[in-house]
Amino acid sequence: MEVIQKISRMRAVAAQLRAAGKRVGCVPTMGYLHEGHLSLVRRCRELADEIVVTIFVNPAQFGPGEDYAAYPRDMLRDADMLAKEGVQLIFNPTPAEIYPEGYATYVEVEGLSRVLEGAHRPGHFRGVCTVVLKLFEIVQPHVAVFGQKDAQQLAVLARMARDLNLPVEIVRAPTMREADGLAMSSRNSYLGPEERKAAAVVYRALRTLQDYAEKGEETSAAKLKKAAMEVLRGEPLVAHVDYLALVDPRTFREVRKVKDDPVLALTAARIGKTRLIDNVLIHEARRSRES
Amino acid sequence: MEVIQKISRMRAVAAQLRAAGKRVGCVPTMGYLHEGHLSLVRRCRELADEIVVTIFVNPAQFGPGEDYAAYPRDMLRDADMLAKEGVQLIFNPTPAEIYPEGYATYVEVEGLSRVLEGAHRPGHFRGVCTVVLKLFEIVQPHVAVFGQKDAQQLAVLARMARDLNLPVEIVRAPTMREADGLAMSSRNSYLGPEERKAAAVVYRALRTLQDYAEKGEETSAAKLKKAAMEVLRGEPLVAHVDYLALVDPRTFREVRKVKDDPVLALTAARIGKTRLIDNVLIHEARRSRES
Repeated sequence: MEVIQKISRMRAVAAQLRAAGKRVGCVPTMGYLHEGHLSLVRRCRELADEIVVTIFVNPAQFGPGEDYAAYPRDMLRDADMLAKEGVQLIFNPTPAEIYPEGYATYVEVEGLSRVLEGAHRPGHFRGVCTVVLKLFEIVQPHVAVFGQKDAQQLAVLARMARDLNLPVEIVRAPTMREADGLAMSSRNSYLGPEERKAAAVVYRALRTLQDYAEKGEETSAAKLKKAAMEVLRGEPLVAHVDYLALVDPRTFREVRKVKDDPVLALTAARIGKTRLIDNVLIHEARRSRES
Repeated sequence: MEVIQKISRMRAVAAQLRAAGKRVGCVPTMGYLHEGHLSLVRRCRELADEIVVTIFVNPAQFGPGEDYAAYPRDMLRDADMLAKEGVQLIFNPTPAEIYPEGYATYVEVEGLSRVLEGAHRPGHFRGVCTVVLKLFEIVQPHVAVFGQKDAQQLAVLARMARDLNLPVEIVRAPTMREADGLAMSSRNSYLGPEERKAAAVVYRALRTLQDYAEKGEETSAAKLKKAAMEVLRGEPLVAHVDYLALVDPRTFREVRKVKDDPVLALTAARIGKTRLIDNVLIHEARRSRES
């Protein structure tokens, strides 16, 4: 395994792989890996000959007052986990390597980037798009895998890749969950023991909404959301719900009715000081049957 | 010669060229070609095995009230001129091919894009950066050639390419001029006969400033600009001077003194309703001697 820190070296290795006719896959991460990341690596292996896992806590996607400095980092543990998955290449640049003195260029997806996560984290998706485009230019992957857990990020990046004609296929991998349903996230490490137990309420609330909607008796988005909010409010450690929304999964525009078309239910909630996001796709099974 | 209109076809041809080990050069243009463009093509030939000339009048870089609809177009003449230069590939997509329904992604270089041309044409460089990045993703060139005539565009694109780690070399080619010094431009076709004669004043003013500065007797930017402004104001058909500036050629920050370091003198002036831009590099010879 090689841990590459320099862009010039990563570029040279990527060029070698391409020249050798290898199909290159990329899994961009911020490190502090868990089973969710490893599931992305495994999915990527099905699609590529060689995998580059990038580990970079991207300052450009954190707002002032967010957890950039506190974000957990453990490069040795990450490298060990990836070695066990057979990953040969890690790209782990420094912030100064990615954003040198005088850095000035940013990529933005309008519309999609401004709602929900974007509204609560101004500049977040601009930072995500910018770093992912840079990583793609450096690694030159044929395919890149992202998790459905960050549903809006996935939609924004897929839109960016399509709009900018990037020669990379963006692949979605399902959310990995703990036994009690909590979506795996590096930020779960912030949770104290009581908070950790309470955090399962996030997925429980979304599943309540999903079951209610898929039964087909209730189509009002307002009533469906109310049912989920009641579940969230039933947990005293939920300090705040940033949003709970039902949107068209392509446009991220809010829907007023949940009928036969797939609808994405998303929420961001704070358990104590820890902000967690999760989502479920309603009528996904139906869509799969039809497609 | 093949004139390609579809992104999918351009991508396939570009992939074939790369797979065959060819070094691919790109000359992005808005068409209505003149000797200036052909000089870029000739420079590109020195640097690449195969050349793709793109011809696309990019709506995203024109502001409301600018000359997008009126911008001159003559595809048959352009193709003929390029055929005589031995160009085999023209990429000439439609606006709907480049900006399909729902298009939402834009690239911006902060700072550099906001001054001079950027201040007078808000959104202009955002449109330029976005389309050039897209063209690069589609054509996948190793090298791209741009003219010094659009000095700020060149600086913005070079910054974008560096910041985003684009695997393409940005090459600068000198401004081509008519016999009386007027910088070649597709927009010169807007000038009536009297305006065409008067338009030579733009370069004459810049050369007056350059000569005055290079003599070394006057270092005050204000006084040097005043001398050039007097030349411009001496021509009655100069309707307006948008700006006349002396800047650091790397940062485009205005300088107060012109001493030994290279300084870029730029102007945008209206001859009747036609907006012309031009620039000269002061102390360029000195820089060349030293480097």
